[in-house]
Parts: sequence; C-alpha cells; structure tokens
Amino acid sequence: MINFNFQNTTKIIFGKDTEKQVGEETAQFSKKVLLHYGGSHVEKSGLLEDVKNNLKNAGVEFVLFGGVKPNPRVSLVREGIELCRKENINFILAVGGGSVIDSAKAIAVGVPYAGDVWDFYLKTAVAKEALGIGVVLTIPAAGSESSNGSVITNEDGGYKRSYGTALMYPKFSILNPCLTYSLPNYQTICGAADIMAHVLERYFTNVENGELVDRLSEAVLKTMISNTPVVLKEPENYDARAEIMWAGTIAHNGLLSTGRIGDWGSHDIEHELSGIYDIAHGAGLAIVFPAWMKYVYKHDVNRFVKYAVRVWGVDMCYENSERTALLGIEKTEQFFKSLGLPTRLDDVNLPEIEKRIPEMARKATEVQPLGNFVKLDAKAIEAILNLAFAKNNL
Amino acid sequence: MINFNFQNTTKIIFGKDTEKQVGEETAQFSKKVLLHYGGSHVEKSGLLEDVKNNLKNAGVEFVLFGGVKPNPRVSLVREGIELCRKENINFILAVGGGSVIDSAKAIAVGVPYAGDVWDFYLKTAVAKEALGIGVVLTIPAAGSESSNGSVITNEDGGYKRSYGTALMYPKFSILNPCLTYSLPNYQTICGAADIMAHVLERYFTNVENGELVDRLSEAVLKTMISNTPVVLKEPENYDARAEIMWAGTIAHNGLLSTGRIGDWGSHDIEHELSGIYDIAHGAGLAIVFPAWMKYVYKHDVNRFVKYAVRVWGVDMCYENSERTALLGIEKTEQFFKSLGLPTRLDDVNLPEIEKRIPEMARKATEVQPLGNFVKLDAKAIEAILNLAFAKNNL
Repeated sequence: MINFNFQNTTKIIFGKDTEKQVGEETAQFSKKVLLHYGGSHVEKSGLLEDVKNNLKNAGVEFVLFGGVKPNPRVSLVREGIELCRKENINFILAVGGGSVIDSAKAIAVGVPYAGDVWDFYLKTAVAKEALGIGVVLTIPAAGSESSNGSVITNEDGGYKRSYGTALMYPKFSILNPCLTYSLPNYQTICGAADIMAHVLERYFTNVENGELVDRLSEAVLKTMISNTPVVLKEPENYDARAEIMWAGTIAHNGLLSTGRIGDWGSHDIEHELSGIYDIAHGAGLAIVFPAWMKYVYKHDVNRFVKYAVRVWGVDMCYENSERTALLGIEKTEQFFKSLGLPTRLDDVNLPEIEKRIPEMARKATEVQPLGNFVKLDAKAIEAILNLAFAKNNL
Repeated sequence: MINFNFQNTTKIIFGKDTEKQVGEETAQFSKKVLLHYGGSHVEKSGLLEDVKNNLKNAGVEFVLFGGVKPNPRVSLVREGIELCRKENINFILAVGGGSVIDSAKAIAVGVPYAGDVWDFYLKTAVAKEALGIGVVLTIPAAGSESSNGSVITNEDGGYKRSYGTALMYPKFSILNPCLTYSLPNYQTICGAADIMAHVLERYFTNVENGELVDRLSEAVLKTMISNTPVVLKEPENYDARAEIMWAGTIAHNGLLSTGRIGDWGSHDIEHELSGIYDIAHGAGLAIVFPAWMKYVYKHDVNRFVKYAVRVWGVDMCYENSERTALLGIEKTEQFFKSLGLPTRLDDVNLPEIEKRIPEMARKATEVQPLGNFVKLDAKAIEAILNLAFAKNNL
C-alpha cells in the first residue's frame, strides 16, 4: 500500500423521490443557476419539468442550457462558459448522466479562468477556482456524480481528454434509481461496462498488499455481475437498479484508488476510439478491456488468477495458473457479450478501423506511454487493438 | 435498500511519515489549538514531542491537555471545555485513539454550548456549532477518526452514552500505520474486535436487498480476519498494520450504513458492561457479540448462513441451514479467542457480575429497547448476558 490522501466531499442523496429535494439543496448554494442537460430524454420523461418546478418553488432562478451529447464537446462547454458569464451565474445544476456532469464541470472551471478551458484538458493550466455544481443523475455509468474528474471531446482533431481537480466534486448529487427505469437497455449495459471498467482499471495495479481495496473492488464487480442481467429483464426492479446506481458511484469516488496506482490504459485507448468514432464509451470499453487483458495478463498471472477465482468463481486450476487466468478473461468477455455489448471491433460499424489503428495509437501516446500496470507505447496499443478483432480468437 | 444521505467530509492522510504534515494541516484551520491526548504512550513513543515540534514549526500555538483514559470521562471533557473558553481556542488536535478523539469531539460541541455538554449525550439538546477537530490516530479501533460520533462515560452513575452530529467529522485525520507498531497486543486485538463489531452491527439488518453493502462489509471482515493474526506475530509488518488501520476507518465512516438500519444492540449492551466495570470496549464486544448472535440468529437464519459461508468460508450444509448459521457464530467466537480475547464473562474479572446483570439490563433500556435487528427489552438483555457465561456452552 502506498501513501494516499482521501477526501470526497460530495453529499449523496439516494433513493426514491429524492429529486424533489433539488430546489431545497440548490438554494443552499445559489439563487440563480445554469440548468444544464442533454436533450429529449429528460424532457420526455418529465424530469426536467419536475426539476424546473422544484427550483421555482425554492425561489431559485435558472437559465436553461441543454444540448449535451454523449462524448460532450468543448464547443458547447465554451458556449456554457459565455452564458454563465453573461448571466452572472455561479452554480450549475447538471441533470443527466456523465456527459452532462462532465460538461458542467468543464464549464465550472472555465468560467473564472481567463484562458481557454481546453488548456486544463491539455494539462497546460491548473484550475484555481470553480463554480459550484449540483447533480440529478439519470444514468449510472461514469461515476462523475461523485468524482473529481471530467472527460471532454475536442471536435477539432477528435481529441478526448480528461481533467481532474478537487474543485470538481459536486456539492450534492441526487440519485434516484427510479429515474433509470426508462433507460434503453443499450445505455444500461454501456453504463454497466463503464462501471466495471472503473473498478478494473484500479484492480490491475503493480502496488502490492492492497487486500482491503482488492476485496472492496471484488464486491463492486460481483454486485454488477449479479444485478445487471436482472434489470435487463426487469427494468423497473428497484433493488437491482439501486445496487447498480450505488455501485457506479462507489466504483469511481476515489475509495478504490486508495493506496494504489491504477492503470487507465484501457480507458485511454477507448478514448481514442470514441474520440474518432463517437461510439458509446461503455461499448468501446467492452471491446478494449478484454483485449487489453489478453495482452497484459502474463505480466502478473497471479493477479489475473485472483480476479478469475474471486470475481468469476472460476475453479482454480492448481496445476496451471495461466489457464485459470485466461478463464477469468474469457468470463469477462462472455459476460459483456451476454449483456448484448460488442466485444470485438468487428461487432460495431467503424469505417476503415484497421487503417486508422496506427493513427489512434500515435495520438494516444503523443504525451507519454499509456497505462501503469504495463506501460503501453504505440506498438503495444496497435497490438491490443488488433487483438480485438474477431479473427484473433484468443 | 432504504433512502439515505451520505457525506463524509474528513480528509484522510494515510501512510508512512504522514504525522509530519500535522502542523501544515492544522495551520489551515487555526493558529492556536488544544493539544488533547491520553498519557504515557504518546509521551514515551516520542510522538507527542514530534507533534509539538511540528506545530511550532508551522507557527501553531498549543495548549497541552492530556489525561484521557479509555472510556473517556465527561468530567475531563468539562475541564477541556473550560480550558478552551479560557484560552480562546477554536480547534482541537486529538493525538491518540478513539477515547481521545471522542473526548475531543465532546469538548468541540461543548465549548459553544451554554448548557452542560452531557445534555447532548442524554439527547436533550442538539449541537448547533462546534470547534474544528484534527486527528493523529494511534489506535485502529473506534473509527472515530472519520465518524460523526462520540461515546462518553459519566462517572456519576456509570453511564456510557453516545452522541453524533455531522459537526463531529474531523477536518483531517492522519493515519500512519507505523504509529501502531508499539501497541501492546491486547490493545491491537481489542481494536480488531471493535472494528469487526462495527461492521457486524450494520451487517445484521432487517432491511433487505443491500447486496453491495453486504459484500463491502464482508470485504472488511475478511481483511480483519486475515491480517489481525499477522500483526500479533509481526508487530512491525507495515502492510498488515495498514490493512487494519484502513479497515478500521472504512468500518465506521458511514459507508457500510448506507441504505440500511444497523442493529447496535451489542454495542449498547457492552457500554453497560464497560460503563460499570471499565473493561476495554473491544474485550466487552468479544464477549457480548457471540452471545447476541446465539440469542438472535433464529430471527433470520439465512442472513447468518450468508455470514458463515461468505465471511468464514463455512461449507454450506444444504440440508441444515441452522447448523451452517451456528458454525459461523462458533467461528466468530473461536477467532476472538484465538487472538487472545475474552469471549465469556468468566474470562475477565467482573466482581459480582451475575448479581449486577439485572441492573445493567434495566439501565440499558431506560430510554427504549435496544437493537433493531431484534428489539431487546431488559429480559432479553439478561438472557444474552447469561448466554455469555462459560457454563452456557452453546
């Protein structure tokens, strides 16, 4: 275990009807807010209307600012920054999933900053102050509701980059599992893959002796494995939706990073994929992660054995630990597939993907190699993406 | 899962040499603090001297206030309150274990309160404000370093009562596992019992469908089971000490209470025991908890089966779930015993204990019945304490 600091100040308000507290909670921070959201889903479901009425009743004025798309764009962030400045707004209420929250976080650090907000994502500037953020979460996936990070896409060049600062912890996040009943199955499973990937990125570490955090991580993974298939069959199963929603927060609130160095190579590779092709982040992860595992498992077979046995209940093959390790990887891929996720590059429509792999590998490593468990240069990234084709039937 | 709010604002600073950050951290909150501690241990180890020098170097003035004993006394708390008022102090630095921190918390809410601090513990008053608190932890046990609660003993009548408020979350807590190397084995094992009891109090709940939190709880318990015997043999095993220290915080920082109602009957029964006899809280818990389990297990055999199989690796007896449940309870008791803890009332010197059981049972239920998993009236408490005698060899 390595030294660490851990502090997560976000107030989680979890359960049925909790969105009705949004006005009261917001009013504690501001009387005029940017109401940031995506599009038709929150409009059709009536959630946006509910939130608006709730804010009004609490005496909170709001300026509507919708239009966030998956893989949220820096261009919209820049518009949001201008709007906040013009309207003299000092608090952003994000109603939506990770994309909306990440967009809100970018606006929050951008407003008080004299330069261009993309500087933060290029790591050429450090945020010194930020507007406050509140959240009503509609998709369990990104964990952004209780994280210090944000991922934004720059259309100019198809770059998808992340930035993190303690200033980005939301002041409060409202999590009502009922709001996820109406999610299309595809969003539910993409969210599940993202949540599991957040745990896996931290699980595969070279830092030894992290027993407690390993076990906590396994707990989150097993909860996702048992509950995700349930909600596909029963979208209005409150208990299963609640397990997934809380697991999504725990997976990414920093707890599972304590005392270790995570990998994050698969996330970064996926960012190249969805930066160019605009596919769902979770779908990209379901393709990249198994391929990454196949590429790196020999680096620490025992860790993959532990993962196979503890998370997937693989029967330990004492005579052949490598076989046990590979079974765990196979189970991972099979599980994603059973949910309906793509697990190979061939499963999704990615025009000219084979040709563009070197470009993605190069862009991904422009600043430095990816990953920590195993350092990945451009060649390694190409090899991983090639392992993700169906023909490489490992 | 039931609705919940979760927010824990304490900043954890964990690892080797972290106590050297105490001056810098404290200076962010105050330039004059009450330096609160117990006695000889922190003096002999040199820790108190280190902290004093560190504060001085950071320009922080301090007023020494030692003398906290296990089962911290309200009389000392009252002295501390007077001292803070006289010296115009607005921040308390607690250097020690749960008793010191709990005493600091009581002083913190007592200073700005016009009435007597014991009012809070009698639940006849609610704290509206409090001094800030910082912690350098020396004993992993009570979890007070990241909890909103405090337990204080009133010598007048031998009452041990708890009070909790978000105002009691420490601003920061410094956890260096090396500071626990020199703990006597008895304190280490009493701490382990306390940590495990904090998880068990939450694990045995009537609220259904808390899979994630169940699994997280099992993770903490299994970590304690594997690491506690290690540190008894190797007191300076950093990794095992670190696992226990971080487990002790997670066990009681509120995470494992999310979405459920804990029991806390065993803690309350133990408070009667240590309120009168002044035995170590952890030792009392090692006696009371197995007896409580034997008394209540039939209320929800399946939950005890889950506990036995998942936490203790008991081979599920599919033909007889009650037998499986009982094996889990037996394993719990055997584990405490193997560490060197008392597990029966006969194992410790408690003069006239048999005679005083009705008195304890009566005092414990003066306000209301104990527990939530099973409601315990005075008769039930007597029955549980009677099950804790060696002669009742269940």
